[in-house]
Amino acid sequence: MPASPAPELAFCYCSQRKPGAAKHSLDQHYDGRGNGSQCYTSLSRLIVPQIVISYCTQCGAATAYVIPPLDSLPRAVCSRCGHIHYENPRMVVGCVAEWQGSILLCRRAIQPRHGLWTLPAGFMEMNETTAEAAARETLEEACATVEIDAPYAMVNLPHVGQVHLFYRGRLPDGRFAPGEESLETALFAPADIPWESLAFRSVAFCLQHYLRDRETGSFGFHCTDYAPR
Amino acid sequence: MPASPAPELAFCYCSQRKPGAAKHSLDQHYDGRGNGSQCYTSLSRLIVPQIVISYCTQCGAATAYVIPPLDSLPRAVCSRCGHIHYENPRMVVGCVAEWQGSILLCRRAIQPRHGLWTLPAGFMEMNETTAEAAARETLEEACATVEIDAPYAMVNLPHVGQVHLFYRGRLPDGRFAPGEESLETALFAPADIPWESLAFRSVAFCLQHYLRDRETGSFGFHCTDYAPR
Repeated sequence: MPASPAPELAFCYCSQRKPGAAKHSLDQHYDGRGNGSQCYTSLSRLIVPQIVISYCTQCGAATAYVIPPLDSLPRAVCSRCGHIHYENPRMVVGCVAEWQGSILLCRRAIQPRHGLWTLPAGFMEMNETTAEAAARETLEEACATVEIDAPYAMVNLPHVGQVHLFYRGRLPDGRFAPGEESLETALFAPADIPWESLAFRSVAFCLQHYLRDRETGSFGFHCTDYAPR
Repeated sequence: MPASPAPELAFCYCSQRKPGAAKHSLDQHYDGRGNGSQCYTSLSRLIVPQIVISYCTQCGAATAYVIPPLDSLPRAVCSRCGHIHYENPRMVVGCVAEWQGSILLCRRAIQPRHGLWTLPAGFMEMNETTAEAAARETLEEACATVEIDAPYAMVNLPHVGQVHLFYRGRLPDGRFAPGEESLETALFAPADIPWESLAFRSVAFCLQHYLRDRETGSFGFHCTDYAPR
């Protein structure tokens, strides 16, 4: 169950609710006094934005979370100019970069999971493709130029509003070094992968499938969803 | 080439630039007086946010687009509280929903591409998975309950900051009807797909591969990138 949000966000995710119909609060929902049976999703799906949008990005006036006409979810709507602020999940994109049978990992120099190992990956930026994001992150975190191959694994983390996407890739020259966000970078043979010190479940999911598929020589596209630990 | 952005956004995407180093303007770049040779990407990749963030979402003060320490891209940073506003691509998720060999399409009742046909799809929301987004959009746009199968196609549209993802799916009972965002909904046999009246290139890409793969019975995961028309 998510942490209790600010009171003005306490609306449940009811896709059945029509514009203008009464909404019920998070407390009502918890108490069983709300319209729970009409809700599209369970309690675990109550909308809890990662960052509260309190002021309008266009004019600076205060916002309120209301359900706009023809919409089904509460959005931060400007009290002055009416601008609607949408919040959407973000993509984290990276790759499994291979060199002579070993895999490039980075030990994180930043939070979260400082000091743990990860595949090079990070938030996708505007104006780039997913493959470009994977290559850029590998360059930034491991100073490595990677040849990107096919998409390989996708992991949903709905509780944090993220979708993780990993590509397969190759290091053409085996050159790498720690970038500013890495304490160290190293190549790991399959038997040496530091499973107990991996930073993220999505990285473990990707590597497990990758090593298994590599034995058969047949790479698919693997997906899973993770709930909060 | 993107439309000319507001002057305060006119910084090019230079991943080589270190924090604090001078940035060059969009005009300098166009004129050839900038550091073009040091740029990570071509002119077509100049960062042009879809919506300018002029005021801070946390305190309402004015922002300025600057490159934060240890970052490589300009972000809208609050002049008072220092809050950094990140903008990232959004995912549009939908599905190919099949019933007795035919495919469910929706004729759009909203802009953009009002009146043209599309697969049920829309912006992924916070606190849902990609498969849930595909099912929700099919319910909203075609009043259809769909059984979601595997991810099938991904299309990057970096110039509009979008990644389109389509699943394969099945209508368990063949029931559907136009939702609020659809003028009409209909099942199309492969020979009757309205190719000339499809709303989006990503939909055409997905359907072309889908029909081809269906003949062989082997469905992969197909990806492409589209530049502006």
